[in-house]
Amino acid sequence: MTDTTETLEHRLSRIHLALEKEELEQVDDVIADLEPAEVALLLESMPPNERIRLWERVPQEVDGEVLLHVHDEVRSTLIDDMDHHEIVAATAGLDTADLAELFEDLPQQVAEDMLRSMDALQRSRLEETLSFEEDSAGRLMRTDTIAVRADVSLETVQRFLRWKESVPDNTHTLMVVDRNGRFVGVLPLSRLVASDQERAVADLMDTEVDSIKVTMKSRDVATLFQTHDLVSAPVVDEDGLLLGRIVIDDIVDVIRDDSEQALMNMAGLNEEEDLFAPILPSAKRRAIWLGINLLTAFLAAWVIGRFEAALDQLVALAVLMPIVASMGGIAGSQTLTLAIRGLALGQISRTNSNWLLRKEVGISALNGLLWALVVAVLAVLWFKNLGIGLVIAVALVINMLAAGIAGILIPLMLKRAGIDPALSGSVILTTVTDVIGFMAFLGLATLFLL
Amino acid sequence: MTDTTETLEHRLSRIHLALEKEELEQVDDVIADLEPAEVALLLESMPPNERIRLWERVPQEVDGEVLLHVHDEVRSTLIDDMDHHEIVAATAGLDTADLAELFEDLPQQVAEDMLRSMDALQRSRLEETLSFEEDSAGRLMRTDTIAVRADVSLETVQRFLRWKESVPDNTHTLMVVDRNGRFVGVLPLSRLVASDQERAVADLMDTEVDSIKVTMKSRDVATLFQTHDLVSAPVVDEDGLLLGRIVIDDIVDVIRDDSEQALMNMAGLNEEEDLFAPILPSAKRRAIWLGINLLTAFLAAWVIGRFEAALDQLVALAVLMPIVASMGGIAGSQTLTLAIRGLALGQISRTNSNWLLRKEVGISALNGLLWALVVAVLAVLWFKNLGIGLVIAVALVINMLAAGIAGILIPLMLKRAGIDPALSGSVILTTVTDVIGFMAFLGLATLFLL
Repeated sequence: MTDTTETLEHRLSRIHLALEKEELEQVDDVIADLEPAEVALLLESMPPNERIRLWERVPQEVDGEVLLHVHDEVRSTLIDDMDHHEIVAATAGLDTADLAELFEDLPQQVAEDMLRSMDALQRSRLEETLSFEEDSAGRLMRTDTIAVRADVSLETVQRFLRWKESVPDNTHTLMVVDRNGRFVGVLPLSRLVASDQERAVADLMDTEVDSIKVTMKSRDVATLFQTHDLVSAPVVDEDGLLLGRIVIDDIVDVIRDDSEQALMNMAGLNEEEDLFAPILPSAKRRAIWLGINLLTAFLAAWVIGRFEAALDQLVALAVLMPIVASMGGIAGSQTLTLAIRGLALGQISRTNSNWLLRKEVGISALNGLLWALVVAVLAVLWFKNLGIGLVIAVALVINMLAAGIAGILIPLMLKRAGIDPALSGSVILTTVTDVIGFMAFLGLATLFLL
Repeated sequence: MTDTTETLEHRLSRIHLALEKEELEQVDDVIADLEPAEVALLLESMPPNERIRLWERVPQEVDGEVLLHVHDEVRSTLIDDMDHHEIVAATAGLDTADLAELFEDLPQQVAEDMLRSMDALQRSRLEETLSFEEDSAGRLMRTDTIAVRADVSLETVQRFLRWKESVPDNTHTLMVVDRNGRFVGVLPLSRLVASDQERAVADLMDTEVDSIKVTMKSRDVATLFQTHDLVSAPVVDEDGLLLGRIVIDDIVDVIRDDSEQALMNMAGLNEEEDLFAPILPSAKRRAIWLGINLLTAFLAAWVIGRFEAALDQLVALAVLMPIVASMGGIAGSQTLTLAIRGLALGQISRTNSNWLLRKEVGISALNGLLWALVVAVLAVLWFKNLGIGLVIAVALVINMLAAGIAGILIPLMLKRAGIDPALSGSVILTTVTDVIGFMAFLGLATLFLL
């Protein structure tokens, strides 16, 4: 096995060439060797036209799996290209949880057809899954759980499994339930095979297991999997009845999506964004973010406009003012990023936020003083004006202190207000550091230099 | 089970209070209920003084596990607080892979003592693990693999496991090897228990399994686990000899670290950074990033300085110029973030980078025109000067186009040069959009307005 990124690039160019030359068997050859997740990645790495041509070559039996592995926006471009019949066929072999994930992206008419084509049991399962809130354990849960009773012997359990003939390959533990279907513990297969077969399940099962309430948020489920190093976990309802299990593969997706989200949101992008989305809808979406930023830029310009007289008398102010704003912005975004990660990891709470604020103010003060000195010396040398050096130094310290404070308080306030700090934090922070930076520098200059 | 973040906050304040009141039994009670990863999170959520006091209450037998779960920087603060004896005791129960992870963070003297206290087998295992490159499969690998031969019956396998009496709880598959120890396939425990016990391993094993070369990069191992939905995978050497296995828990850590890295690096921070690091070292580290930014800020100031005459004649230019730079910066950072994620996911390659560039230029052109119109109208209304509206509109379009191009080309070039695009991309991009923004606006103004 070689470097996978390398081979992806390799495959991409092979497919690219083959599509260009219309050598479709070549394309089929490449696809045949791939896992659905790899086909998904190839599709995501292609501009719309090529993507659709590749999608048409993907065998119907893997269509459903591939759709599950692409980001939402890419998924809808693929679904748009399929007719009713193809969609229904693609979703035929899927597990209820997977079906539920796709279901809400389907065109109304197709969704209805699909429901009609299902038998009563499938339909009621799907409806039950859809009744759980998005991003809750209920949506992540698989129902292919194998449950056994505590009072039987290991030998009986193995006989039962052999009678069933097959166990899902990703079954690592058996669930133990009481006569009413209430969850009581788990029996890892590793213990089942390594213990004396005469012993009872009750002797060997692990009852110290955290069961997951079906309403628990996906993010909290992910935290639980990470802190407890879990591979699978039972899901129960309010009364402790076993409903299903959550498996680590689905949790890996939650973890990845969550971290992509912070990165993308900080730039005003959505984590489901298609890298190769067409120009017009992409431009539209980004326009909103640019528009919000324009408001803050005009606010900063308005602040500068208050000091026209000063700028008119001393042109050096116009030359130097972006330095004050920019240093504040950078210092603030460092604090902000650290706070956003801290909030995401659950490291920040009421108990320690004061300490954190003091720490960031301390850092800002030290770095403010250091760089104020450097900037002052350079400004004095450049403009041969001692006053301007003093003014820019004081303004820089003020703005860096403001940046440190804002970098902690803004995300905390946003979080408390239920707003994602990664999404709006950076715009608000830049507004603060621009306004305070220009105001401090130009205001002090007006007071002391003119 | 309730919301885990909630309970963490709860625990934090309980511990905080208990430490303040010196009620150490209370502290011990809280810790006793926690998994090592949760203790690690609590420690990471505390200022240095409290952290050390809590650390001293953590029972020695979980010290090693806790050290493995904290970020590097926090780890070294904890290790600094331990004496030789404590460190050696803490690492006693650890697996070789875990030991190797800690080993390089230990003080020289302690590391030597530890090596001396090991028996020959342990020492040679540790040395072998350390001989693999950091961030390679060899470092992630566990050696507690259970291997069986292909020609035996399932019954024999089960008898062998029962004779061993215990199998590591996170064993989900048995490895199948030939008489020379070469890897030939895997036998999932789920298949072992659900099949006729007379059958041979060879009949049931899965030979279509990707084995991982011991030199493969961790990041590629993580991609493989994700695309193939793996829970564990065999690790082999150049000749196909089975060396060990990699389990999903360790991969989850790789995935999380990787995504944290992009977020933190974009702000010039390290993903191992301690949220509660002391002020002085934090200030020092951040000073470098601020210094680099200061260079680019002075470069921008120098560009503005070239146009002192224009600014002197028309003060409106000073008021409006930050708008041009800021809009370019925002548009560029959107493109840059999308490109950084695309590169991380392996979606961008030579085949599609031209398409991507054209797309981003198209988006920039559309948004440039839209916002140029808005800005021009507002500028004309504000300064009653038609010329200034035209000039700022053209400058804005130029800068947004430059931002779109730079947002794609900078990360691609950095990647080709082997530099992390997330780390230096944003500074370079801001330099480009500042310089081009100021130059276009002030230059056009000098040409047409004065």
